[in-house]
Order: sequence, then structure tokens, then C-alpha cells
Amino acid sequence: MQNKSENVELLDKPQSNCGVVGIHGSAEAAKLAYFSLYALQHRGQESAGVVSSDGNRLYRHAGMGLVSDVFADPNLPEKLPGTIAIGHNRYSTTGATRLSNAQPLLVKSKDGLMAISHNGNFVNARAIRQDLEKQGAIFQTTSDTEVVLHLLARSKYPNMLERLREATTILKGAFSLVVMTRDAIYASRDPHGFRPMCLGKKRKTNIVVSESCALDLLDAKYLRDVEPGEIVVLDKDGMHSHPLEERPQRHACIFEFVYFSRPDSRIFHENVDRARRRLGKNLALEDDFDDTDADIVISVPDSSNTAAVGYSRRSGIKFELGLIRNHYIGRTFIQPGQGQRDFKTRVKFNTVKGVLKGRKVVVVDDSIVRGTTLRQLIGMIRKAGAKEVHVRISSPPITSPCYYGMDFPTKDELIANQMSIDEIRAYIGADSLRYLSVDGLLKAVPHEHGGYCTACFSGKYPILPEKIKSKYDLEN
Amino acid sequence: MQNKSENVELLDKPQSNCGVVGIHGSAEAAKLAYFSLYALQHRGQESAGVVSSDGNRLYRHAGMGLVSDVFADPNLPEKLPGTIAIGHNRYSTTGATRLSNAQPLLVKSKDGLMAISHNGNFVNARAIRQDLEKQGAIFQTTSDTEVVLHLLARSKYPNMLERLREATTILKGAFSLVVMTRDAIYASRDPHGFRPMCLGKKRKTNIVVSESCALDLLDAKYLRDVEPGEIVVLDKDGMHSHPLEERPQRHACIFEFVYFSRPDSRIFHENVDRARRRLGKNLALEDDFDDTDADIVISVPDSSNTAAVGYSRRSGIKFELGLIRNHYIGRTFIQPGQGQRDFKTRVKFNTVKGVLKGRKVVVVDDSIVRGTTLRQLIGMIRKAGAKEVHVRISSPPITSPCYYGMDFPTKDELIANQMSIDEIRAYIGADSLRYLSVDGLLKAVPHEHGGYCTACFSGKYPILPEKIKSKYDLEN
Amino acid sequence: MQNKSENVELLDKPQSNCGVVGIHGSAEAAKLAYFSLYALQHRGQESAGVVSSDGNRLYRHAGMGLVSDVFADPNLPEKLPGTIAIGHNRYSTTGATRLSNAQPLLVKSKDGLMAISHNGNFVNARAIRQDLEKQGAIFQTTSDTEVVLHLLARSKYPNMLERLREATTILKGAFSLVVMTRDAIYASRDPHGFRPMCLGKKRKTNIVVSESCALDLLDAKYLRDVEPGEIVVLDKDGMHSHPLEERPQRHACIFEFVYFSRPDSRIFHENVDRARRRLGKNLALEDDFDDTDADIVISVPDSSNTAAVGYSRRSGIKFELGLIRNHYIGRTFIQPGQGQRDFKTRVKFNTVKGVLKGRKVVVVDDSIVRGTTLRQLIGMIRKAGAKEVHVRISSPPITSPCYYGMDFPTKDELIANQMSIDEIRAYIGADSLRYLSVDGLLKAVPHEHGGYCTACFSGKYPILPEKIKSKYDLEN
Amino acid sequence: MQNKSENVELLDKPQSNCGVVGIHGSAEAAKLAYFSLYALQHRGQESAGVVSSDGNRLYRHAGMGLVSDVFADPNLPEKLPGTIAIGHNRYSTTGATRLSNAQPLLVKSKDGLMAISHNGNFVNARAIRQDLEKQGAIFQTTSDTEVVLHLLARSKYPNMLERLREATTILKGAFSLVVMTRDAIYASRDPHGFRPMCLGKKRKTNIVVSESCALDLLDAKYLRDVEPGEIVVLDKDGMHSHPLEERPQRHACIFEFVYFSRPDSRIFHENVDRARRRLGKNLALEDDFDDTDADIVISVPDSSNTAAVGYSRRSGIKFELGLIRNHYIGRTFIQPGQGQRDFKTRVKFNTVKGVLKGRKVVVVDDSIVRGTTLRQLIGMIRKAGAKEVHVRISSPPITSPCYYGMDFPTKDELIANQMSIDEIRAYIGADSLRYLSVDGLLKAVPHEHGGYCTACFSGKYPILPEKIKSKYDLEN
Repeated sequence: MQNKSENVELLDKPQSNCGVVGIHGSAEAAKLAYFSLYALQHRGQESAGVVSSDGNRLYRHAGMGLVSDVFADPNLPEKLPGTIAIGHNRYSTTGATRLSNAQPLLVKSKDGLMAISHNGNFVNARAIRQDLEKQGAIFQTTSDTEVVLHLLARSKYPNMLERLREATTILKGAFSLVVMTRDAIYASRDPHGFRPMCLGKKRKTNIVVSESCALDLLDAKYLRDVEPGEIVVLDKDGMHSHPLEERPQRHACIFEFVYFSRPDSRIFHENVDRARRRLGKNLALEDDFDDTDADIVISVPDSSNTAAVGYSRRSGIKFELGLIRNHYIGRTFIQPGQGQRDFKTRVKFNTVKGVLKGRKVVVVDDSIVRGTTLRQLIGMIRKAGAKEVHVRISSPPITSPCYYGMDFPTKDELIANQMSIDEIRAYIGADSLRYLSVDGLLKAVPHEHGGYCTACFSGKYPILPEKIKSKYDLEN
Repeated sequence: MQNKSENVELLDKPQSNCGVVGIHGSAEAAKLAYFSLYALQHRGQESAGVVSSDGNRLYRHAGMGLVSDVFADPNLPEKLPGTIAIGHNRYSTTGATRLSNAQPLLVKSKDGLMAISHNGNFVNARAIRQDLEKQGAIFQTTSDTEVVLHLLARSKYPNMLERLREATTILKGAFSLVVMTRDAIYASRDPHGFRPMCLGKKRKTNIVVSESCALDLLDAKYLRDVEPGEIVVLDKDGMHSHPLEERPQRHACIFEFVYFSRPDSRIFHENVDRARRRLGKNLALEDDFDDTDADIVISVPDSSNTAAVGYSRRSGIKFELGLIRNHYIGRTFIQPGQGQRDFKTRVKFNTVKGVLKGRKVVVVDDSIVRGTTLRQLIGMIRKAGAKEVHVRISSPPITSPCYYGMDFPTKDELIANQMSIDEIRAYIGADSLRYLSVDGLLKAVPHEHGGYCTACFSGKYPILPEKIKSKYDLEN
Repeated sequence: MQNKSENVELLDKPQSNCGVVGIHGSAEAAKLAYFSLYALQHRGQESAGVVSSDGNRLYRHAGMGLVSDVFADPNLPEKLPGTIAIGHNRYSTTGATRLSNAQPLLVKSKDGLMAISHNGNFVNARAIRQDLEKQGAIFQTTSDTEVVLHLLARSKYPNMLERLREATTILKGAFSLVVMTRDAIYASRDPHGFRPMCLGKKRKTNIVVSESCALDLLDAKYLRDVEPGEIVVLDKDGMHSHPLEERPQRHACIFEFVYFSRPDSRIFHENVDRARRRLGKNLALEDDFDDTDADIVISVPDSSNTAAVGYSRRSGIKFELGLIRNHYIGRTFIQPGQGQRDFKTRVKFNTVKGVLKGRKVVVVDDSIVRGTTLRQLIGMIRKAGAKEVHVRISSPPITSPCYYGMDFPTKDELIANQMSIDEIRAYIGADSLRYLSVDGLLKAVPHEHGGYCTACFSGKYPILPEKIKSKYDLEN
Repeated sequence: MQNKSENVELLDKPQSNCGVVGIHGSAEAAKLAYFSLYALQHRGQESAGVVSSDGNRLYRHAGMGLVSDVFADPNLPEKLPGTIAIGHNRYSTTGATRLSNAQPLLVKSKDGLMAISHNGNFVNARAIRQDLEKQGAIFQTTSDTEVVLHLLARSKYPNMLERLREATTILKGAFSLVVMTRDAIYASRDPHGFRPMCLGKKRKTNIVVSESCALDLLDAKYLRDVEPGEIVVLDKDGMHSHPLEERPQRHACIFEFVYFSRPDSRIFHENVDRARRRLGKNLALEDDFDDTDADIVISVPDSSNTAAVGYSRRSGIKFELGLIRNHYIGRTFIQPGQGQRDFKTRVKFNTVKGVLKGRKVVVVDDSIVRGTTLRQLIGMIRKAGAKEVHVRISSPPITSPCYYGMDFPTKDELIANQMSIDEIRAYIGADSLRYLSVDGLLKAVPHEHGGYCTACFSGKYPILPEKIKSKYDLEN
């Protein structure tokens, strides 16, 4: 009898990095930050935290687990006083050592206390880190985020805005950062604009969040995106924009539309739901399937629901609810003993036999990483009596790693990197398999505000990590 | 700043009572019971528990919270040894005093230890309880279930089967019971068959569960329902049926099809999904709406998804995903301060603006109890830009309390008991409102295996609580 | 590497059963009960609990662990409202099954809610329990205390006082009981008066507690003992005595003076400290040792301190602090790997080398049960350089089990039952060993208020368990 | 009803800073470190932690609370693998901000991971910290200890020994440091030797600990003190001494003998117990009291026991146990409502009436800080019937703050700084009050190995904090 607990969230999907939030000018700042983290929970379930400021001191609470676990104490808002707060939830990356990585980080420098929340990934963090270490800096976390704090603390510039501009010029890669001092919040998005971040307002409270769905929960008004390369300062005088002088070339992460962001969010100047619907439509357009070839379209809930509806609409094949997802399972469970490999999948999904039995089924999923979960789902769908199972993926094959904040398995574990499409089809046990083309992907999203990073599908990297040298290093 | 924690599960729906499970003949009996509770989590989120037997002693673990919380310890299976186990999860009813109500209950009587799990409600429990108290019995819980144990312990019959038959003859009302001794499990369903319960098998392991979806998770075979009035004994020689001699008249709870059961379960000889689909279709048939009157149909996820798909299919109005449900919220959250009444609804649901804006929307919901949540949802849908909002309910107005295991508010709080349909429409802020008729409801479910209880919609009670005298009382 | 946690409290001493408290007439009743449990913590460390009454409902909080663990929540008093409260802390006896035994027990009977706290042991509980079970009663705990509640609930008498009198007539053995209803507390001590219990007063608040040290902590006045066979009712009109009609023959547990009670308590009409001092003096008087035979007297702290001071005073041998006790160890610790048997002793005690080196040492201990801890202590004392080690025990050899509430190991494990005194001396590694005589023991305590039970030393049992038949049984 | 929880440990005593331990060369290194922390628990109860190394990675576990709380998980040793470990427990100093201060600290620098445990206080830490911050360093804790890590990381020296020598030359004040890298431990004691630290050995395992009592618990052999100014390296080749070139002038903290260290430890080349006994003897010698002036001597347990025995021996007045200490109280308790100021004292101590009643009592205590606890104790002793109460303090009046690791209240709160001795006597309510003289204090301790710091009594500071400039600062 083997009783290992397994994390049920670790399904076969890329992992997002984090959600960030900053609240300025509310008597309930910490509470609003905490509510925002609820709305951003899908961006990271490993840890959550809030740092608040009463204009004098900074107060921190952070811990491992879901927002509801970390902030279970109803007295918590009293413990995080003040009118300014930032928050963070994160998804884990494997940390070799036991240095604590929960954010926001809170440190003391010559100018006093400062805290930071970060979503993204710096491609030259390791190089800068080594430079800093050579100069005697010490690191208490394994997270790249700490590098930012070191750069801010070492900067010769007299004020935080210039320091942050300097730091974000030295750092290359993807970042949506929220930095807090005693009296202000600095929101900074990288010049490529990989990760989303937007501004909102509720009466006199100014807000910055990763996705607009958090503004909805706060009943706040969505104002606009923080633009690529822009720093926005939230202080007692309001919000102040400090754009990059040179015009940045945007490379928004297109996978945010495919999977990461919540469908009710607006990112990169578009509603996620609308883009995701078009992914499904374009998938149907590229396909040769219609209602004479299949009886029903089902989605892998909940992430593929919208694309499946889009596919159904365009193909004319009826949309059905053939898989039920169990939302009560918590974060870990005890494994059954007898090597039932698909148990993890079955505890999360069940088939609706009345819907599937005797049917030719199109299954729409948003992406395939290793293929293990999909293979098990198809087995379950067949067992429920489906006559045929045709898989349609609303994005292209993932063949290349992401250096900008998505957490894939290694290249060798990416199934599309190891097998042909027909081999994948055979592995997952489908009667047919089609992916959306990169072209179909790009047609689903708006282009008037800038371009997209498609590196995971195309291998075309906006910033090549290996070419990057540490600017900081050169300067010294 | 008010920081009260509120239970977010307490949305405006009737509450189911419980899920039960019994496992006989597996080296992993407690584990299988625990997995079954996962699958039955929708039937009760307040507490969970398992009692196991190694043929000699009985072992109990139970606690407040979700199955994943109560059974978080990976060593738990070792603490619940043996090849027999029963389990339970329950929904709370308000208990005036602090007697512990978590099940399974475990007690010692003259014949040794016995444990019990119960789904349902006895209409004459209070009368029997008073009789027992008069005779000197003491009660350690406020739950009706303890009454069963007293009746079993006091019975003059020499064996458990006859005792259980006697007890279930004295007790009137709804029950799906699982009783465990050192070496056997006794599954008993009331003669009216109000609540579901079915049998399954996995190799040499015999299983009884509230709903068949638990068998799917265990990868076990569904055999058949435990029939109304039947007692099934699971022991080392297999499963033994002991039907009621007189033919019982079935009154299966039709609300199980409307809302309680999981769509992937088979209850009362029918797949829930199929019945629920027909509810939506019949709702459309009774309606005068088609795609010229409305642009889209959306459901209140997840419980109304299937009915909404059925409505869409028959009305020809497109099915869309206009509301997103947040599944990460945990069981409690800290309330915002400024009297935002709809916060509890907003933390659970968000609107998809791109879908709703400028549209005439049909919202399908399965039922209305107080109407508060629906009123807030409609406000949110309008705020997202919907042009018109038409509400369609896939069951008739709830006008009467349930004495058989559903937990409604009091009669005065049932909106359909206090207002006309047009007044309800005005209260929830809809442009139009229609309910399914009782006739349309009954047409959606099969009748060859017996009738249904429709008391909450029709006021026609199969057993009138006030008329029932305690048979036990008369005998003494 | 073996990491088993071991309970460090389980030193080689008999275990007391419990402490009880009742508070009537204070706006802070639950708090005062909780403080009393602090003062009575030495009587039981396994669980703690309080039940309060606001005159209408009863409220319960109980849990495993020390008082400070169970009542860690500062909001707890608000959760236990009312002006009446009873409390309990208990020492574990091994429970075969997982029925919950934390007290006070709270049940509902025909006359409403009642709660009970119990210190002692009924010798005929099993027989009565079987009678009750034959009549159909069910038991939810393995504790004898539940039997009292059944007897109270079944009684034909109309009021609680008569019922309690009846129940305590049926029950034989040792008990200091506190029973609570909505509006009153009933304190009852068995006719033999085995266990202590006394009354106190603080302004308008009436109090009953196991030992007077709890009154000191409450800053309350000690009034008098609850007498053997007496029931005292605490209600809104004050305290009312209901003595037994026939004069009871007292058999107070003399081991309360030897070890159980706190030295600052007054029990059985005597200060524990004074009696314990005389035990040490009498031990010296019976001995042939003086300051030419030994250099120093040390105690095994803290329980033997007082007797050691008494011994020192009479023998003329200097009292020294040769053993230091570590009070921070908590309830469990992880064992070292390499079979260091004496680690559990070393984590609790350390030797003071400067005191012991080169000295002839008299070690005073209050009792020997298995002898394992003392053997290890003597090894440590020798290792610290003691020239000779002479052990003096301030009570006679324990040869017989206790049926009245002390928790010994089985008879076979009692070292004095298996070995001669010289064999014990050899086993523990002492140069000489002497016990106090039964005569010397009895001379140390007052006799004007009644006799003592010395069964564990003498085998003379005031009530022979095997002879007792259940009066209740006969009556029916 | 006010329910504030109060920390019961915060009695009116100076607070020690910390205990440290290092273990090299044991398969159970983390376990041995954890056991050592048990033995050193008296040096700090706020937090505990261990960092281990398997030669490759470092593993950390630390948390708030007692050692038994922080290390409750029996699987913990598996989570801290390796043959090298260091540990720490600390007493809190008030931290203005919420930066985490639990030790050992673990950081990554250019040379890899390193961890540190620290007992003591740097007088120039703030100056160095400001210098480091000016150069851009950031701090994640408010503890001085982090400064050491920064100095080590920034050092130009190629190896840890030289870096540590450099750092400890820059840093001024009191420190007993244990630094760990992947493969070695570096133990460093400041040139004044304020705080104790000693070396031990158990088979092939080399050990460094704050006090020798930890070696006893490990069954290890005490070798010798780490000498003032010495660095001892523990690595795979054994232990290597690196003394300071210039001969340091020792200023061992004499308060370690008075109160901090455990009586069974050997520090500064003397058994604590023996020195403490002489403090009591010298106190009696300076006094004019004998057995005609007082009936009994009692101590404030447990810290004053040894001095009281010494006083009793020399004065001829009988030693008695007049105060009982409750050791089960846990770390916090809920306060009673009605402003009972002495409740905190009463929950910790109770009087033994039989001992005190009608007696002239000498109370020996080791020190007076604010005087509040002693004032309450004297009130309790009088209430218990003492005829006269004479207070004798086994150290001189504390008039000056400590800059070397003791945590006093501010100068204004030191009662001996605000009142004359007779005023103190009146405030605490004693019939007479005498302190030991500084001369009597110094006569109680050995002088052949160096001198002592008596600053808190004499105001003579070995290092004047205000004169110290940061050497580091000068160099840059």
C-alpha cells in the first residue's frame, strides 16, 4: 500500500508563473490586494502573499498554498494595516535548495524598506546574479526577483523611478513588476510586453493587476494596459506614466490567449474569450470536418470550453458536455495502490456516458505538453462507448522551451519535439489529430497594438538568452 | 473594517444531505471509501469520515471540511486498517448545540461496535427520540442518525439483519443507510426510495455508494440500484438481497435529477445527464422563444450547464459561455467592508463581456430558492452590456418545504411562496421569467420503475410528517 | 535512522486520572474554569475541555493536548458564553477503539442537555455497562463516565439531585464528579472519598475543584472539602449540601499525598507539602543513615523535592540540587537512532557534576514502578562521579494494582511484585535501597477525619471489584 | 471581557540571546543538532532552526516556537540529510518590521551556499550595515547576524577561514558564531570572549555548542572551551585551532554565571553550579543574618535554587521549598478580565502555605530588573502568612544596559537606576533588601583564565559602543 500524496494540479499543462497586484489609496488596501489574489489564483497556486504599508512601516504576510489557506485568519487585515499594499501568487518552479521563495519579497536597503512582486522571467538573471555575487552580494532566495532588489539597492540614482528604469534596462526578459516603498507603488512592464498588466480605478483607489478579471471582482474600473516599457507610479498624487523613450517592439505572449489568462479578462487590448473563440473557429476552418463526420464536439473543461464552442459554431457539429470536472479535490490526494496510472486523471474528470455512447466525438483541447493526461482521457472516453475520437488542438505543436515565464517540461519531455503528429495520434490513442497552424493562431488575435511571441510554437525567440550579456557586467 | 469570514458555498440552492459509501473485501477498503467520498463531495462539504474494520476492531477518522482536508495525512490508510470500510460526507444543518455530528457514527452496544452512515431524513425521528429519551436514552449528537443506532441496540432480534429491518420499519421517511459491524455491511434504502443508492463490484470487492459516479472513480462496475425497501448485506460470502415483502411504492426525489446528483451518475434507472438534458428541452418546448427572440443561451455554471445545452438545442438559440466560475475560492473568505452585498456572488462568478455585450440573453438556471444570487447575477450580466435578460428555470417554482432530506430555507424565505412569478421577475430584474411545469418535469424522467416525489413543487407529500405516530411508541 | 516520536511525559510514575472543576455565578465562568485547568494540569495532560451554559444552551470546547494548546484561541471565551461552566483534564488510559474520550461529556436526554466531568474509576462500571447494553443502550466513548450519564437519564426520579444520588449509589468505586445542567452544578464525591475535591468562593462565584491550588490561582477562598458521600449543589441560590444519610467510611487515597497532588494544595484536611515533608522525615527516622554515612541528599525533581528536604532535615545530611530537570521538552520528541535507552531520561534530567563528584549520595524518590528511569538516573549519577548511591523511597513498595483511579502498569510490570528489595537494588544499581514502611506512611498523615486506602502498598482493598454485583442489575 | 494572550515567559528577567550548535561527521547530524537545541532551550524560546549539508546541498528547517514545536514532524531528519549540521535557538528582540529573523540564516554567495548561527551582539553592526547599504546591499532580516554574511561574501580573501577572520576583526562586540559551508563548520568566539562556546567529541563526531549541558545530552565528551579570539574549523580532517595572533583580553559575561547558563553546564573553565553556590555563600557572608533572624530561606525557582542553597549553608538558616513553579503553562495564556495584575505571576508560581505561615522568610533571587514580579511574589508570600519577608539578591544592582547580548529593558525601566535600594525595598514590599556586592560577585568566579565583564553592574564597558568606528568604513 503506497500512500504518496500527489499534487493534482500538475496536469499536463504549461505552468504560468505568477499574478501580481498593487493597491494605492484605500483604507482596505490589504483586503483589496487579497481579493485580487483570489481572482488571479489561476496564475499560481503554490504560494500567496501581501505586503502593506501604513506610510511608515511595511507589514508582510505570505505562505504556501492557496489564497484562501494563506489568508484564513479573519483578523489578518488588521495585521496588514495601511492604505498601500502589493500582493503576489506564484506557481512553483523546482528549487534546488531550501531558500524561501514566497513573494512579495521585503528587504531593507539604504533608503528603507521596499517590497516587490514579479511575474515573468529574466533571461540574464543568472549572469547578473553571478556579477553581483562576485561583488559580494548574498542571495536569500533562488528566485530571479531578488536580483531586481539588488540592482535597485546598488543604483547610484537618487530616486526609485530612475533606479527602477535602470534596473529594468539592465534586466532582459519578461517582467511585470510591482515595487512598493513606504509611500508609492511602481509598476513596470518589460519593453517586449510579454506578460499582461493593467491599470484600474475605484473611486480614489488606484490599482495595478496582472489581469482585468481582478478589477471586476473589486468592482473597479478597467482603465488601460500598462504599456510595454512603461513604468507607472501610483502615489498620493495619482498615477503617473513614464514610458520608455525609444519605442519598444512588443512581443506579447500568445499563450496567454491560448491557455493562461482567464476568459473573462481583457489583455493585450482584446477580450481573452473573444480571441479564444476565434482559435476554435480557425481550427474548424483549417479542418475538413463537419457534422457528417462527427456527432458531437466536447471540450476538456474548463480551459478548452471557449475554443470548443468556437469550433462547434464553425463546424456545425453539436457542442456537448461529455467530460465533468471535479472541483473539490484540493491540492493533494493519496494515491491508490495498484499502479492505476490514470487515477490522477479520473479523480479530476469523469465521462458522461449518455453523451458519449455510440458517438463520433471531437475532443477540443488547448494544447498538448507530454500527452499523458490526454491519452488517459481518450481511454476514458472510449470506455464510455464513443465510437470514434478525433482530437483537435486549438494551438500549434509546442516544440520549443519558453524563456519568458512559462514553465514547460524539458525539451525532451515535449511530445511534439519527440514524435511526428501521427506518432502523437497513435500514442494518445485518437482516430485523428489536428493542431491549429501558427498562421491560424496569429489570425485569431489583434495586431494593431504590436506583435506576439510565438517562440514555443515557432522557435523564433525575441531575445536569445545565450546571446545576452549582462549590461551591468559591461558597465563595471 | 469588518472581517467576518463567510462560507462561500452557501449559495442560493437547496442543500443535499449527504453521500454514503460501503466497501467490503479490499485490502485497501479505507482508501476506496476515501476515493468514493471524493466523487461524492458535491453531496456534502461540511464534514467527511471513514470507519474501517479489520474483523476485530473498528477504526474511525472524521473531521470538519472537505475530503481533501480531512484526509490530508498520507499515512491515514495505515491508521484505518482492514478490508471493510464505510464513509460519509455531509452537508450541515444548523445545530443549536455543540454536539458533534460528523459521520460515520461509531458506538458500542451489547453486540459490539457498530458504525453508521446516513443520507436522508426521518419524519418521525423527533417522536422516536422523545420516546427513547423517556426511557432513559441519551444522545450525543443532534443528528437523526443516532436514533437508528438506539433502535438497533434495543432490538430484541438476535441478528443485525432483522434488527435493521425492524428499525427501518419503525422509522418513516427518507434514508439510504450503510451500517457496519466487525465483519459485514448492511445497506438499506427506504421503501419510498427517496434517495439514490447503488451497488458495484471490482474484482472481489463489493461496493455500495450513493451515486454511480463514485464507482467510475474506483474503476468498478455498476451493478444495479439498491431497490426501495431492500436491504443488501455485504459480507465474506458476497452480496445478499433482502427485499421488503410487501411491494413498496416508490417516490424517488425528482430534485436529484434537477440539481443534486452529478450529471455523470446513473440514478433511478436513468443517466442524470440525459434527464437533465430533457428538462432543458421540455423547458424550451413550453416556451415561445426562438433565435429571433434571443441571441444566446447561457447557463449558471456548473449545475445548469446540461439543461442549458438542452434548451439551446430545442430552441435553436446559440449556447454560449457567458459566466465563468472561480473554483479556487476555498470554503471561507473575508468580507469586504463597504456593504457590497453581491461580493459573495462576484467572488464565485464573473461575466464574459465579449459574449454578453449587446446581446439578448437567455439565462438557464435549475432552480430559484431565495432569488438573491440570481438577482445579483442578472445585475452583473446587465452591467456587462446585455441588452435583454430572460430567465428560464429548468424546474417548477419551489413552494413547499422538503421533509425527506433537502435543506431549504423556511417556507417564508422561499421566494415562490411569497411572490407571484411576475413579482419574482421584477425582484430578480429579468425582462421575462419562465419556469418548467410539473408536467414538463415528469415527462423528462422514466416511469417504468416507479413514481417520484414532487412535494417541493406540488405540495403533495408521500408521507405526511404530522400524521405519523411513532410505531415504536404504540408498541410500548 | 529511526525517527519515532515518544511521549516524554510517560516517565516511570503511576498516572493520575483527571482534574475537575465547576464554576457557578461568574460572567467569566468559562475563563475561570480554564484557569483552574491550568492549575490542575499535573493531574492530566492528554486532553482538556470546558462546557459552559448561558442558562439556555450548553457550549463545549475540548481537545487533545495541554490546556494551553486546547485553549490557544484568544476568542475562546466568547465561544463559551454564560455564567456556569465545568472543566476537565485527563490522563489517557489505553483505549482499544477510537471512540472519543475527551471530557466534559455533553449529551441530551429527556430533561435536556447535561455535561459531566469525572475523576476516579468505577469498579462495577463494566457490569453496569453490560446491563445497560443488554437493555439497548449504546456507548460512544470507552470511558466509565458515560455510564453515569446513562444512569442519570434512565432514573425514574424527577430531579437531578435524586437521580445523581441514585446513580452514585449504584456505582461503586472512586469518583469525584461534577455534573452540569442548564442552571446548576452538582458535585459528588464517593462515600469512600478516594479522590480529593473541595469548595471555594470568590465574591458571588461558587467553585468546586479537584485541588485547592486551583482556588489560589483564581484568587478564591478555600472553604472546605466536599465530604465523602456528599453531594453539593451550586445554583443561583448558593451552595447546598446533601450528605449521605449513613455515615460513610473514608478511604482517602494516600498516594495523593505521596505523588499526585500538588504540594501547594490542601487535601483531606491537610497541606500536601506538610504530609510529604513528614514522609521524608519518617523515612529518615526508619533509616540508620546520618551525615557520617552520606555527604548529600538529592531529590528526583520536582516531585520528590519536599520529601528530600524532610529527609535531609531529620538525617542531618545536607540537601543539594544534584539533578536538573528540563521543563521545555514538550510532549514528544524524536528518538536518537542508536538504541540509547536512557535518552528519554537524559532529555528530562541532567546531573550537576560539581555537586555529585566524589560524594556519597542519598537519592530520595517518591516511588518506584518499573524502575527503568531510576536505573538510568543512577547510572548518570555514577557517571557524574558519585562515590556511592543510596536510594530512599518515601513510600512503601508498590505491589498491587489500583482499582480506584491510578493508572499503573500491569502487576507483572510492577518491579516490587517481581523482585525482592535487594534484587531491585541490584537492578537499579544502587549501593543500598530502603522504602518507607506502611506504618511510617500512615504516621505522616492525619487520621481525625477518616482512614486511607493503602491498597497499592498493602493489597487491602476497601472495595473488592470482583465481589461487587451491579445493584442496578438486581433491581431490574 | 478582555482576552488578550500574553507571553508567560516574559518574566522580569534579562533575556539571553541565543544558543548555537555545530555537528560535523555524524550520519545523524541534524538529529544531534536538534537534541542540542533541546538542551539549550533555556537560551531562547522564540524560534529554532537547523541547517544540514550532505556535502552538496544545504537543507534548512526553522520556525517560531519551542524546539519541540518546530521539530514536531518525526520525518524531519530525513528532510535534513547529511553529516554536517548547525542549529540555533533565539530569544526575540523587538523587531519593528516583519523581516524574518529565525536562524540559522542560509544564503547563496559567489562561493555557494553558507549558513550561520549567532549568539551575541555587535556594537558596530548598525554602522557597518549603513556602510553596506550605501554600497547597495539589501537586508532581509533585522538581525545583526546578516551583517556577518555580507562581510563574508564581500571579502577579497580566497578562503572562508581568512574571510571569517577578517569579518570578525571588522565586527566589534560579543559573538559566538557558527558558520557552515557545504563541507565544514567554522566556530568563532570574539576576542573578549563575552559568550560561552565549547568543543565536544563523540566517537568521530566533532561538536561545538554554546554550553556543555548539550554535550551531556548527546553523551559526548567535553573537550575544552573555544578560546576568546579563536576560530576552530571542523572538517573531514578533524578540528583545527586558529587562535588570534595578539593575545586577547577576556571579558566573560559574569551574568552567565548569575542567571543565563544552566547550572549543569561548565563555562569559562568553571561549573556554573559551583559558581552560583558561591554567589549564595558570599551573599550570606556579606549579610548580618543568621538563624536567629530568620526561620527559613526559600528561592524563586528554578533559577535561584542553587544560590539559595548556598546562602542557607553559610547562614545556617534552613532551606525550604516555599514557592512552587508551574511548568505546564505553555507560551501564552488568555488574561483574566478584571485587571488582576499579578495573575501572570500567580499562573507561574504558587505559595506553599504550610512552609510560609508564621515564618520569618529570606527570599533569595538572582537579580531584579523592573521589580514587578518580585513585588507580586512578596505579596503572595505575605498572603500565605509569612511574618517577615527579607529579600537577598545574589548579584549587584543592575544599573547599566548591556551592549553584548543581554536584552534588558531600557535604562529608565531598570529599577536600580531609578530608585535607591531602600526605595526598591519599599516598592517590592520587603522588610529588608540586600544585594551582593560587585566584589562578592567577582570572588565567586575563577580568575586564572581571564577577566569578566561587569558592565551591567558597574557601568565599566570593555568596548564603548559610541567610540567604535566601522573599520570597514575606514578601509573603503
